[in-house]
Amino acid sequence: MASIVLKRTQQKVTKSTCADTVYNAIKAGYRLLDGAGDYGNEKEAGDGVRRAIADGLVKREDLSQRIIVKQITKMQLKLWGIDYFDLFLVHFPVALKYVDPSHRYPPEWFGDDGKVYTQNTPMHETWGAMEELVDEKLVKNIGLSNCQGSLILDVLRYAKYEPQVLQVELHPYLAQEALVKLCKRFSIAVTAYSSFGPQSYVELGGDKGTPSLLTHDVTSAAAKTHGKTEAQVLLRWATQRGIAVIPKSNNLDRLSANLDCNSFDLSESELAALSALNINLRLNDPADIDGRLAIFA
Amino acid sequence: MASIVLKRTQQKVTKSTCADTVYNAIKAGYRLLDGAGDYGNEKEAGDGVRRAIADGLVKREDLSQRIIVKQITKMQLKLWGIDYFDLFLVHFPVALKYVDPSHRYPPEWFGDDGKVYTQNTPMHETWGAMEELVDEKLVKNIGLSNCQGSLILDVLRYAKYEPQVLQVELHPYLAQEALVKLCKRFSIAVTAYSSFGPQSYVELGGDKGTPSLLTHDVTSAAAKTHGKTEAQVLLRWATQRGIAVIPKSNNLDRLSANLDCNSFDLSESELAALSALNINLRLNDPADIDGRLAIFA
Repeated sequence: MASIVLKRTQQKVTKSTCADTVYNAIKAGYRLLDGAGDYGNEKEAGDGVRRAIADGLVKREDLSQRIIVKQITKMQLKLWGIDYFDLFLVHFPVALKYVDPSHRYPPEWFGDDGKVYTQNTPMHETWGAMEELVDEKLVKNIGLSNCQGSLILDVLRYAKYEPQVLQVELHPYLAQEALVKLCKRFSIAVTAYSSFGPQSYVELGGDKGTPSLLTHDVTSAAAKTHGKTEAQVLLRWATQRGIAVIPKSNNLDRLSANLDCNSFDLSESELAALSALNINLRLNDPADIDGRLAIFA
Repeated sequence: MASIVLKRTQQKVTKSTCADTVYNAIKAGYRLLDGAGDYGNEKEAGDGVRRAIADGLVKREDLSQRIIVKQITKMQLKLWGIDYFDLFLVHFPVALKYVDPSHRYPPEWFGDDGKVYTQNTPMHETWGAMEELVDEKLVKNIGLSNCQGSLILDVLRYAKYEPQVLQVELHPYLAQEALVKLCKRFSIAVTAYSSFGPQSYVELGGDKGTPSLLTHDVTSAAAKTHGKTEAQVLLRWATQRGIAVIPKSNNLDRLSANLDCNSFDLSESELAALSALNINLRLNDPADIDGRLAIFA
């Protein structure tokens, strides 16, 4: 992809000519506009982009995602009413066609026709866009989510800022021992989602027929021993392995109980019994939506 | 990494000045020399590189791997005594420190001290180097080996030439159904290695205590039904799923028998019974060598 760098330090694109330069670059076939707030010409660059789009030279989604990533992040900060995010993650290592927020927000996974539209934005471009968010102080830390080992290792090879966090599905049915070990090796903190396993998917009809971990004998036995709830046992199984948890509940009592999940220790044999439930059961897999999104294959 | 492009089309580096330009670029901190046989200045570029190394400005292994990939490929062609390879694969998605073939060839996985030395060459650089081999007609097709789904999908996003083949460990204990499905979706041919499972690792002491597939009840029952050997059944289980096989044998009879593995068809229930042996058992995992190489986590 042809690229144009909008750097101020080298006075490559001065403020006065910037809009025209960008417009003409797009006309000539450039699709990657490497800008940064620091270059002091974002408004002018944006003017050029908007003019090119208005004139039908290019569609917004054909331009590099770097500008779009920044715009969306700023929009999200505005929605939250804050100045920066502490942690910002690549939600899934998939690239879907851009949906303008004025058209639909959140964009979700589908086009207007219910089909999935992918886009060829490589991970190293996405990660570069994430790193720019750090440089511009829009976010403090960046990380990954739903990534396999080989992709994490590749990001580590080119990262200017290494991922600080990996957030993945993790429960006794998907214990993720190898992935957690890899993350520890590279000082990447692990956050578990869906700590209760199939429970989180029952409403969506996606529990894949597996018995609940919240009423499982192994969980219940440990809960009884420690005078805790099964939910607390499942959370402690993760936190005792050094993994952060983010349980969802709309019930205030359960929110309090979940918060209290570190007030006891499971024994080595209890931890092992829970880990032994591992069957590599993945409940949240984009391949179930579209075969081209088989990021866990 | 700072880069210098040695393109002839734009006359950026003419033949007469090329060696000096390369030398001075290296002196200035450039480490990626983007050359190609087509630019007609490889010898001169090489002169500059050699002078820089001789003067101690840089070590060979600090320079981009593109030139090295080409040199090694040419050396391998010379060793084979042929002009081109039909298929050339990235053996593992890991980047190890370069070992000059004059020092040790093949380099294997370890430094002189028996330790593993990694290097930050991202996959997209490696793949770019592979694509150059195609452009220079040193190889006809390029592919991947030992890659997970998310990394394959990332390569597909930036590939100029898409991978034609994926070679992976594949046997009934590691059926790889999701990965095979993904490859079919993107017209990537799959080649299975270690078709006999643990058998291939017994000599190395790496069969991980699993029973042999060559004497397994399920394999033997199908072999008996069809009047074939267990080895032929295991190969047919793969080929009938559209997967190529590359069984190794030093025994001429077994070589012939293996070649004859497509002269019968397993029934749907025989195929399913073999696939049901899947326990995601991976016998060839670089993480067993070094935790930083956990490409299957």
